[in-house]
Amino acid sequence: MLFHVRMDVHIPLDMPVEKVNEIKAIEKAYSQELQRSGKWRHIWRITGQYSNISIFDVASNEELHNILQGLPLYPFMNIEVMPLNRHPSSIREDDS
Amino acid sequence: MLFHVRMDVHIPLDMPVEKVNEIKAIEKAYSQELQRSGKWRHIWRITGQYSNISIFDVASNEELHNILQGLPLYPFMNIEVMPLNRHPSSIREDDS
Amino acid sequence: MLFHVRMDVHIPLDMPVEKVNEIKAIEKAYSQELQRSGKWRHIWRITGQYSNISIFDVASNEELHNILQGLPLYPFMNIEVMPLNRHPSSIREDDS
Amino acid sequence: MLFHVRMDVHIPLDMPVEKVNEIKAIEKAYSQELQRSGKWRHIWRITGQYSNISIFDVASNEELHNILQGLPLYPFMNIEVMPLNRHPSSIREDDS
Amino acid sequence: MLFHVRMDVHIPLDMPVEKVNEIKAIEKAYSQELQRSGKWRHIWRITGQYSNISIFDVASNEELHNILQGLPLYPFMNIEVMPLNRHPSSIREDDS
Amino acid sequence: MLFHVRMDVHIPLDMPVEKVNEIKAIEKAYSQELQRSGKWRHIWRITGQYSNISIFDVASNEELHNILQGLPLYPFMNIEVMPLNRHPSSIREDDS
Amino acid sequence: MLFHVRMDVHIPLDMPVEKVNEIKAIEKAYSQELQRSGKWRHIWRITGQYSNISIFDVASNEELHNILQGLPLYPFMNIEVMPLNRHPSSIREDDS
Amino acid sequence: MLFHVRMDVHIPLDMPVEKVNEIKAIEKAYSQELQRSGKWRHIWRITGQYSNISIFDVASNEELHNILQGLPLYPFMNIEVMPLNRHPSSIREDDS
Amino acid sequence: MLFHVRMDVHIPLDMPVEKVNEIKAIEKAYSQELQRSGKWRHIWRITGQYSNISIFDVASNEELHNILQGLPLYPFMNIEVMPLNRHPSSIREDDS
Amino acid sequence: MLFHVRMDVHIPLDMPVEKVNEIKAIEKAYSQELQRSGKWRHIWRITGQYSNISIFDVASNEELHNILQGLPLYPFMNIEVMPLNRHPSSIREDDS
Repeated sequence: MLFHVRMDVHIPLDMPVEKVNEIKAIEKAYSQELQRSGKWRHIWRITGQYSNISIFDVASNEELHNILQGLPLYPFMNIEVMPLNRHPSSIREDDS
Repeated sequence: MLFHVRMDVHIPLDMPVEKVNEIKAIEKAYSQELQRSGKWRHIWRITGQYSNISIFDVASNEELHNILQGLPLYPFMNIEVMPLNRHPSSIREDDS
Repeated sequence: MLFHVRMDVHIPLDMPVEKVNEIKAIEKAYSQELQRSGKWRHIWRITGQYSNISIFDVASNEELHNILQGLPLYPFMNIEVMPLNRHPSSIREDDS
Repeated sequence: MLFHVRMDVHIPLDMPVEKVNEIKAIEKAYSQELQRSGKWRHIWRITGQYSNISIFDVASNEELHNILQGLPLYPFMNIEVMPLNRHPSSIREDDS
Repeated sequence: MLFHVRMDVHIPLDMPVEKVNEIKAIEKAYSQELQRSGKWRHIWRITGQYSNISIFDVASNEELHNILQGLPLYPFMNIEVMPLNRHPSSIREDDS
Repeated sequence: MLFHVRMDVHIPLDMPVEKVNEIKAIEKAYSQELQRSGKWRHIWRITGQYSNISIFDVASNEELHNILQGLPLYPFMNIEVMPLNRHPSSIREDDS
Repeated sequence: MLFHVRMDVHIPLDMPVEKVNEIKAIEKAYSQELQRSGKWRHIWRITGQYSNISIFDVASNEELHNILQGLPLYPFMNIEVMPLNRHPSSIREDDS
Repeated sequence: MLFHVRMDVHIPLDMPVEKVNEIKAIEKAYSQELQRSGKWRHIWRITGQYSNISIFDVASNEELHNILQGLPLYPFMNIEVMPLNRHPSSIREDDS
Repeated sequence: MLFHVRMDVHIPLDMPVEKVNEIKAIEKAYSQELQRSGKWRHIWRITGQYSNISIFDVASNEELHNILQGLPLYPFMNIEVMPLNRHPSSIREDDS
Repeated sequence: MLFHVRMDVHIPLDMPVEKVNEIKAIEKAYSQELQRSGKWRHIWRITGQYSNISIFDVASNEELHNILQGLPLYPFMNIEVMPLNRHPSSIREDDS
């Protein structure tokens, strides 16, 4: 089941750089593991923003919530979730 | 080069059904041809809406504009375009 | 899987009363059948509005979309969908 | 009498974890007692948000206000209240 | 139980004047009867707008909805309802 | 001359409780004196909010501004002012 | 007593030109008479818009409402009213 | 050339009172000098707000920007600029 | 003096194609004449929209208003005007 | 390929003046180098705002993102990106 998720990141300006880098490294590993599992299907950077558009393929709302809540950057994010369906005009087998 | 496009369709309530169906059929063919060419990478329906989220892969803003303006449903759509980049955490070869 | 749906109805002012009543009767039957099946869990009227708040329990986004698109009043509605999870503080067995 | 309440929680980033956990534990007990009494009918988590949708069944606006103001997380919440009615199409005896 | 209601009226520009005047006359009688009964406590015109701010004192959300839905101008109104409580600083016996 | 005023209070989370209580006590006395004088006609709490809806009856915009600016909680408030008129349908002698 | 009023005009596209010109001529005469009386202190066009910013000096909200409601273009306008005070830094005798 | 400017002032709550008063005094002198020169034509307080509406008469956008940027309260202000024209219905010689 | 103007065009869906094409042709000639005169400095299409971003270089607000009001598509446009200044970091001689 | 970028700068009020000036000097050098290279085509100050409107001419979204992310003031900016096309009415050779 597919979900469109937009994440906007707002890290406090006074957080020490090493701390920021540490969180980002853990975030990257966390994201890539979920990408390899197939649950985090796509992730793109929005040009000019510290924001991404992601497509998740999960078994339930519950699973999506747990994945998002587990994000190391979660406390610094604004997140919007939008459920998606296969489009009747789509020709890609794997877009559903 | 990738672009995130949201299309919301508002067909006038008094358009004859056959006319609507005719436009939709042409729209579908137009979309599928562009999908086969690789320019229209993804298209998903937003749950509960007559709206889609699409990802385009085009050579320029110009090309994207021409594709969108050529949509049979274009006169009845509200369209939002957002440029995308490859995300530094992405592991998919084809998401850039 | 639960979804929170808000429906705002805007029937054109010039639709004949009998036509309106006919659509509303079909809508009511459609809604009650889905309520009996357990898929349309709750429906409440928003005070002072021609709008409702509904809770759906469906197997997938796909199923929810098909139910909503099948509403006789669908062409006259503005619909917002929000996925829900069981709340960790909930004590109701049937709110998940 | 039914009310639809949305609560968005914004705990300050610099509150000590133990303090946060203590408030959350009191909040949970407070909520569950009200759920058992039947006044807090439903509570769901919004997917991907530190927010909930709740349905209250109270005798008056006054009672609802006192319940909400008594929430341990009240100082950190943004709250929206919307009065609800039984829907004419509802088949559930207990949704009014 | 008190409610704050804002009503914005948008009568179609092409409705015949006599029809408009007829509806307004019925609306006025309807409103004044409810004012005399004590259910429609206050009504004020917003300066420069075809809008009013009203305070209702009703037994339930249900009663308020029925009153509003019964307004002759209801099909041409945008209505917002906000529940009110007695304010702890109020000195008026009849503002609760 | 009547004015509709909405006040939303945002006291900083780190203000000491005694300080908060002291300001609130002065605010209450200030408000009640103005209510007794007839200038602050009505005050209601918005359910679930630290906000009020008030009706003022003053001789001029100037007088209203001075009253609002004199509120002990003024530095922590967001205030919206809307001029009101007697409504042509009103039957209350004292709602103008 | 001063009020800041913004008027945005939306004349229906299908109104005959002579009708439009007739209403505008009456509107102009109406406005200029009120300007000569001193009640309509200032009127400026917003660059690029069919909108104006006006300053009224009236005895009451009631008087302002009657003036605005009497505008020949009133049925085609969106109007916003904002009460003003003399500014403590103002040096103009006639800006209060 | 005329411009409509709205200034909303947000002085930090923790700025020492003497500092605030000092800035305000310089601001007042600065504003009055510009009023005497004819460049700052009008200034009014918005009722109930720490905000003003001002009309400037300057030779260019450049001059307006320099005046606004020179305001002692500039770092604490939100400013909106709207170009104005003489209105075709205006009878005041000096409103252009 | 420079101004940033955004124009969004909404031609009624039922206007005959020849009429639309005729207006567009006049619009194009009108725009190109102003471009040649140097008053309409730049015009770009917004990707995916029937909208443009334009930069005007005019002697006054008055001149800009007259140019915009003279646009053949003016009755079908939503226009936003924003005054611009030379930027202190700009190295282009002709961007002021 | 052209992009319209709006940058709003919000430097924290408590940043030491020397630090602010240092960042601004680096920002200016960075901007001017990109202007000389032709990638940063135009930059204008919005009158009355600490904001600019810029036009970039870059080879890809990627290049634009890297330029924006490299801005010394990037952590203190709110940035909006809008892709542009050559306008069919444009007569300037270099506006595409």
